Amino acid sequence: MIIDGKKIAQDLRERLKKEINQLSASSIKPGLAVILIGDDPASHIYVKNKEKYAKEIGINSKVLRFDTSIQEKNLIKEIHQLNNDKTFHGILVQLPLPSHINPKKIISEIIPAKDVDGFHPINVGNLSSGNESLVPCTPYGCYLLLKEIIPNFSGMHAVIIGRSNINGKPMAQLLLKEDCTVTITHSKTKNLKEICLTADILIAAAGKAKMVKADWVQKDCVVIDVGINRIEENGNKKIVGDVDFENIKEKVKAITPVPGGVGPMTISCLLNNTLTAYKKIVSN
Amino acid sequence: MIIDGKKIAQDLRERLKKEINQLSASSIKPGLAVILIGDDPASHIYVKNKEKYAKEIGINSKVLRFDTSIQEKNLIKEIHQLNNDKTFHGILVQLPLPSHINPKKIISEIIPAKDVDGFHPINVGNLSSGNESLVPCTPYGCYLLLKEIIPNFSGMHAVIIGRSNINGKPMAQLLLKEDCTVTITHSKTKNLKEICLTADILIAAAGKAKMVKADWVQKDCVVIDVGINRIEENGNKKIVGDVDFENIKEKVKAITPVPGGVGPMTISCLLNNTLTAYKKIVSN
Repeated sequence: MIIDGKKIAQDLRERLKKEINQLSASSIKPGLAVILIGDDPASHIYVKNKEKYAKEIGINSKVLRFDTSIQEKNLIKEIHQLNNDKTFHGILVQLPLPSHINPKKIISEIIPAKDVDGFHPINVGNLSSGNESLVPCTPYGCYLLLKEIIPNFSGMHAVIIGRSNINGKPMAQLLLKEDCTVTITHSKTKNLKEICLTADILIAAAGKAKMVKADWVQKDCVVIDVGINRIEENGNKKIVGDVDFENIKEKVKAITPVPGGVGPMTISCLLNNTLTAYKKIVSN
Repeated sequence: MIIDGKKIAQDLRERLKKEINQLSASSIKPGLAVILIGDDPASHIYVKNKEKYAKEIGINSKVLRFDTSIQEKNLIKEIHQLNNDKTFHGILVQLPLPSHINPKKIISEIIPAKDVDGFHPINVGNLSSGNESLVPCTPYGCYLLLKEIIPNFSGMHAVIIGRSNINGKPMAQLLLKEDCTVTITHSKTKNLKEICLTADILIAAAGKAKMVKADWVQKDCVVIDVGINRIEENGNKKIVGDVDFENIKEKVKAITPVPGGVGPMTISCLLNNTLTAYKKIVSN
């Protein structure tokens, strides 16, 4: 079975739109502020899509653009203004940042209640401790895709390839909370193939094109492919995941395609986090 | 090989004592404040030992005792006073707390720089993200014991039994950072024995007396036993770990005994955290 991320992401946006529509006309609308520095083409495409979908569902979205020469202290001033701005409930700083700006420092300046990327140490810590928190968008999207297929995760063995702060580590926390046994693997792991063969759930987020082969997975496995790799094949440029999709798709219980799997979920989860942050802030 | 936690913990205290002795006579001494509520006998023993060892190595230690009837808001006031008290660099609230007090709330009121238990969400998040942080004492003690035996963790498979915030989860972060492949197991895990048999490092923190049997481990395994279980055997009361020590000790590469393994390390790591917090606070 192919997991239709595009459709599931759209359904989520529909639900969010409905909920936003039902807010009383007099109340302030949910607002998302995105800080974009420089002119990295990929970042511009991401931000444009975030803006488009936010508007579509009724979130007030604003992009603050700055030149790469912006000083760290001035960027922090902008963040502090947004922290205090009652019209914005989510603040996102588009990564990567220019090399003279420390991303850890910047992220820690965002007030945790508005940290819709879920990267602030307080949100990371609360997720790890099983407290309420804003959850990073990509692993949260993976989790929602899994929930479409798996009614009860208890006792399943989840294998995660990749231990990034953005995906692998928060993914592990989400799956532990669902009572999975969780194995986190990475570039230093030995016997990766053998470990993958024991997975009921496989999350591939290694950033290596088609690294997971058909003989790495057992037939009941649900495979979530987080990879986005640009390759050239038979003279054609194309985007592929970390999983050898064509050779695996018929073999496993379910799998996400690339593109059209995890990718579309990420923006929908960002909008979901913005609404979550909004409700929390407005109710306080 | 039996890992002598008592000796390694004592060596650590000697090193800390030396370092504290070398601080200039005019500078303020490192200080640890412990809040103890009620009269739980186990808590009183722990706190007494903490005080004793702190004094022994030159840490200024104070225990604030309160009746179980103390109100949450008054406890928070005490914590705020300690946060601002320049003579204390570590604050520890002895758990468990009376049921009318929310431990999460209390822990989050301790300023992260003085949170020597490493339980504040900011410290938990920084540990997870690979940033500088204060690390919970028990897993940090386990980690130091492992470092005595294992020169290079890279690619080793670490299996952790138990996913608590106090031990299992921070243990996973410490071992991931050392390039281990990490599997976190718990009460819902299936095939626990088979998983343990693949472990190069086994951390048993399940709270079940002698649950890990001799046929669960392979001969090159290093076993760290976090369990402290009071049982009766042949009419005698005794304390045993989560590992069937007598039947495993000859089989594996190395193992910690209970008592005399992880236990003594925990207090030494608390003192280590207090000195770490002190140095950071004083240098700022």
